[in-house]
Amino acid sequence: MNTEVLNGRLEPHGDGELISKVLETVVEQVRPCTSRGSVATYIPELGKQDKGLLGIAMASVQGDVWVAGDWDSPFTMQSISKVVSLGLALTEMGEERVFSRVGVDPTADPFNSIMRLEMVAPHRPQNPLINAGAIVTLSLLPYPDSHSRFAAVRDLARRLTGAMDLDMDEAVYVSERDTSDRNRALAYFLRSVGALEGDIEDILDSYFRQCSLRVNAKDLAVMGVTLASGGVNPFSGERVLSSKVCRIMRALMATCGLYDGSGEFAVRVGVPAKSGVGGGIVASVPMRYGIGTFGPALDPKGNSLGGIMMLERISKELSLRVL
Amino acid sequence: MNTEVLNGRLEPHGDGELISKVLETVVEQVRPCTSRGSVATYIPELGKQDKGLLGIAMASVQGDVWVAGDWDSPFTMQSISKVVSLGLALTEMGEERVFSRVGVDPTADPFNSIMRLEMVAPHRPQNPLINAGAIVTLSLLPYPDSHSRFAAVRDLARRLTGAMDLDMDEAVYVSERDTSDRNRALAYFLRSVGALEGDIEDILDSYFRQCSLRVNAKDLAVMGVTLASGGVNPFSGERVLSSKVCRIMRALMATCGLYDGSGEFAVRVGVPAKSGVGGGIVASVPMRYGIGTFGPALDPKGNSLGGIMMLERISKELSLRVL
Amino acid sequence: MNTEVLNGRLEPHGDGELISKVLETVVEQVRPCTSRGSVATYIPELGKQDKGLLGIAMASVQGDVWVAGDWDSPFTMQSISKVVSLGLALTEMGEERVFSRVGVDPTADPFNSIMRLEMVAPHRPQNPLINAGAIVTLSLLPYPDSHSRFAAVRDLARRLTGAMDLDMDEAVYVSERDTSDRNRALAYFLRSVGALEGDIEDILDSYFRQCSLRVNAKDLAVMGVTLASGGVNPFSGERVLSSKVCRIMRALMATCGLYDGSGEFAVRVGVPAKSGVGGGIVASVPMRYGIGTFGPALDPKGNSLGGIMMLERISKELSLRVL
Amino acid sequence: MNTEVLNGRLEPHGDGELISKVLETVVEQVRPCTSRGSVATYIPELGKQDKGLLGIAMASVQGDVWVAGDWDSPFTMQSISKVVSLGLALTEMGEERVFSRVGVDPTADPFNSIMRLEMVAPHRPQNPLINAGAIVTLSLLPYPDSHSRFAAVRDLARRLTGAMDLDMDEAVYVSERDTSDRNRALAYFLRSVGALEGDIEDILDSYFRQCSLRVNAKDLAVMGVTLASGGVNPFSGERVLSSKVCRIMRALMATCGLYDGSGEFAVRVGVPAKSGVGGGIVASVPMRYGIGTFGPALDPKGNSLGGIMMLERISKELSLRVL
Repeated sequence: MNTEVLNGRLEPHGDGELISKVLETVVEQVRPCTSRGSVATYIPELGKQDKGLLGIAMASVQGDVWVAGDWDSPFTMQSISKVVSLGLALTEMGEERVFSRVGVDPTADPFNSIMRLEMVAPHRPQNPLINAGAIVTLSLLPYPDSHSRFAAVRDLARRLTGAMDLDMDEAVYVSERDTSDRNRALAYFLRSVGALEGDIEDILDSYFRQCSLRVNAKDLAVMGVTLASGGVNPFSGERVLSSKVCRIMRALMATCGLYDGSGEFAVRVGVPAKSGVGGGIVASVPMRYGIGTFGPALDPKGNSLGGIMMLERISKELSLRVL
Repeated sequence: MNTEVLNGRLEPHGDGELISKVLETVVEQVRPCTSRGSVATYIPELGKQDKGLLGIAMASVQGDVWVAGDWDSPFTMQSISKVVSLGLALTEMGEERVFSRVGVDPTADPFNSIMRLEMVAPHRPQNPLINAGAIVTLSLLPYPDSHSRFAAVRDLARRLTGAMDLDMDEAVYVSERDTSDRNRALAYFLRSVGALEGDIEDILDSYFRQCSLRVNAKDLAVMGVTLASGGVNPFSGERVLSSKVCRIMRALMATCGLYDGSGEFAVRVGVPAKSGVGGGIVASVPMRYGIGTFGPALDPKGNSLGGIMMLERISKELSLRVL
Repeated sequence: MNTEVLNGRLEPHGDGELISKVLETVVEQVRPCTSRGSVATYIPELGKQDKGLLGIAMASVQGDVWVAGDWDSPFTMQSISKVVSLGLALTEMGEERVFSRVGVDPTADPFNSIMRLEMVAPHRPQNPLINAGAIVTLSLLPYPDSHSRFAAVRDLARRLTGAMDLDMDEAVYVSERDTSDRNRALAYFLRSVGALEGDIEDILDSYFRQCSLRVNAKDLAVMGVTLASGGVNPFSGERVLSSKVCRIMRALMATCGLYDGSGEFAVRVGVPAKSGVGGGIVASVPMRYGIGTFGPALDPKGNSLGGIMMLERISKELSLRVL
Repeated sequence: MNTEVLNGRLEPHGDGELISKVLETVVEQVRPCTSRGSVATYIPELGKQDKGLLGIAMASVQGDVWVAGDWDSPFTMQSISKVVSLGLALTEMGEERVFSRVGVDPTADPFNSIMRLEMVAPHRPQNPLINAGAIVTLSLLPYPDSHSRFAAVRDLARRLTGAMDLDMDEAVYVSERDTSDRNRALAYFLRSVGALEGDIEDILDSYFRQCSLRVNAKDLAVMGVTLASGGVNPFSGERVLSSKVCRIMRALMATCGLYDGSGEFAVRVGVPAKSGVGGGIVASVPMRYGIGTFGPALDPKGNSLGGIMMLERISKELSLRVL
């Protein structure tokens, strides 16, 4: 089997001449389009990214890895980390307990909307992949403080990605922590309606930390294939999550993974995926592949413009769609 | 035994015995639970249904059919017909034209909500599977009046289901037409904001007619497998829709097919499906199967309680989930 | 010297040299500003009005009348008629019965909003001066059909204004009836949530008819002073409404009379008033005066731009504010 | 000597006997009804109040004062303090600057709603008497920190009420500060949409302090008559506010002073007033009287149940209504 150490992590390799070629080609074709997007600016540190970057990596359940473009450029997980903390919560608390506090409804509201929380009683966030839902999910974890809570999320992220040195980007964390009025508003509102308990600044601190976890496209590909395989990381051989938890995560990614762009993504790409405003997308083709993309130029809904375009082409070329 | 590569996996074929047995068993196991649901009452004629009814049918792309329970009890399509008229619109008008007038966003709003239409400009219904979106979709069809518009939808429904005598239930149609204040409100509102053009009563008439199309579970199974196969009805051999149109329809079913229960359905069942308040659900497992279920006892979100329970069990037993 | 026959209706009279002068002056000063407004266009017939028109009339409880500018130009009451039908409903049904079906809450929603009706249960229109509330109020009246319902409203309007030949403008009525999608949406929605009963087209017909009642500024001044006096028309000497009903009407005018411009009007003018998109405003200074203004150029909230400006100046000059 | 022209009417003066009797009687009649209300509990310290308390005081522009019941029981201003800080802001910043950041629209939303802020751009609180508006108003004041900001508000409150030792209730302040998730949510949300600038905890601290200002019914009566007189405290003789600022304050009190109960209050009582969840109401009858009531038993909208009942009766008995 073809795994070797790359960057202290993994060695991309594989006999997939076809796949290598497809990845190279899509990066080349899509790169000019990235000029049409914009990098996230609401977190100042994210605004410094080079919007011309574009990279992709793909991993199979058999343990192959293919890469192209800026696949090793680092970026922060942002909302992709919500998948990680959800996996942790489902594992530690159980499905029933998590979903008694957070819904599983897709929503066409923007990712940081308070409105719906206010209208519909009981005031339960629609799903764990919008900010409100992710914050509540995090608050349910049985850890006494931000430090231990974040350490647990990071540990799961490391095992999902196989990047055992994965850690947060300090500058992004600080930038995020200091400019997050909307998330503070959400958290205080959630607590005011009884949807959230605990020390808000402490919970938010772990939220900002997990959002700032730094990865590259290959890390996301490994994470995606671990979810695709039903929880076993094909490179480390470790069972990281149960297959049931992976099913839930993939289902939520399929219906709510790209904010209010989830429906269009299902039409165009047709595989479970989760995006982050850091420019990453992790996609998970059940039983087959994981894909990680990176392109910090975002579309108006906050999803990586280049990432979606690459995934659309690859899904078609390699017949990946499951819908 | 016939093994062929479908979706990258080896597919056993012809296990008629196994599938028959599974269907029989789930009907038997689930039937007692139907007493917990309620038949739809907002359309008086639907309120007359026997809520103990429960049936299922399954069809493969190879042309097999299995049935169990009250699979041949007739019921009306209701919202399932939205999939048909969407397929017709996509075929006749093209994807771009349809989606310039109707979105593809999943939504956590109830199926007949006006609110979101009022808040967000441009006032475009979120997706073609909520009432507002279905009415707009219907209005786009190039037919001069309700009679010809309905005839075209019915014709497509006949070819999708293979039931060439499929027609509407007159009593349900009349009941629906006479009690549909909410749909009238929606339609007038849509026209007032420029989202709908044309003669409202005429458009609504074809909408009520298509909702009243009478089918049974087997008809839905055939419709489901026709969508699953990429548009070819495996029984008639006719190409009814293009594979691209089928992909769009399956993606929308996966993200918006069960109203605000779509997310939970994705978690529990994990296949594209569409429900109707008449008690039916059509499910479509890409490249493999179609399933039709019937159970008029509904859960609070308006989806067939027994239908979802049967699909959940079958999906697990037969490894049908794609998410 | 001040008595003349006016339209065969009233004799203006009074020694108010001061008031005459003030009215003349404000018309002169305000007229150039009317170019900044726009006539209502959502009812095509209203779009034909000359936006340079500007007139005012004032009447005292002692029976004096003063006029200036285009005080005798005819226009339609539009929303001002809601005050008339409210007075009729309060008189015929009693306060308790009316307010069990319509609220008395001011609202910052636009006059034709459906949203709030959908969110807050019970689905009761906020107040009788928004469209939804006016339609429900009309539906409560004990008349069998649009003809008799409208006749009763018109009769009350005649007695309030003293214009015994007051009638509707046929062209505006037809224009309104044929372009009123939003009102139809409102009415069907109201019925769908149980807030409205009866034949919708018949109720709306009487609504469109009362909106089309044709008056001039002097008619509104008399109506205003009749409300101000506690229900006795000082010119005819007839008790038209009870003082209790007048109090309710004035309170609602003060808090909800100018749509979402009601708060600003209270600050700038400080007297109970009601506007209509036909360009009229009726103001009622309790125990003292009624004022009618006409200026079809509207501000963005749908209120007569010139009317508000004239009322603000007159209120200051003559110390009319009660708030 | 006792008749003077006020608001165009002859005003009897010095009927001390009549007014004293009326006040005594209403306290007696209304007191049993207070058992139907509930004390505020969302601020724990407020929940300790005796809901049977009921008091009233009335002051005239001529400098008379009448009292009855528990008129000298202390309670905290809560939302009534919003009127004070609004007066301060209008005086220090000018009308134009204040209303460029806060609207003057009445609203039927509950006092602490975030929803409307999210929907309507620009994100400007509807009016200065809802929490969001009051917090923004406070933030506009030209003081460097909570200490000096609160000192300025307290100083104005002292001059308005004539209670020169007026100060905050430490226990209520602490209770409020520690349980104010909703206000924190509001403030962070406001800042996230650009509607608020500055140090949120510092601004909120002054908000909680002003809400905790401790007064009695007589203090409110003096404050009410100072607003009624056009800004001159008839007891101290000091001009505390300009008459223009008082007009604005009275207009806002008339349309938005009792949360979503403002419309009903206008109908039942018909005078400008402002309530607080501490149980107080201040009413201001222009050119004539100020009234302060205290009754901690609240109705479901958060207004003093006994206070409204007393004001309704007094308004009728003494012909105080201006609407």
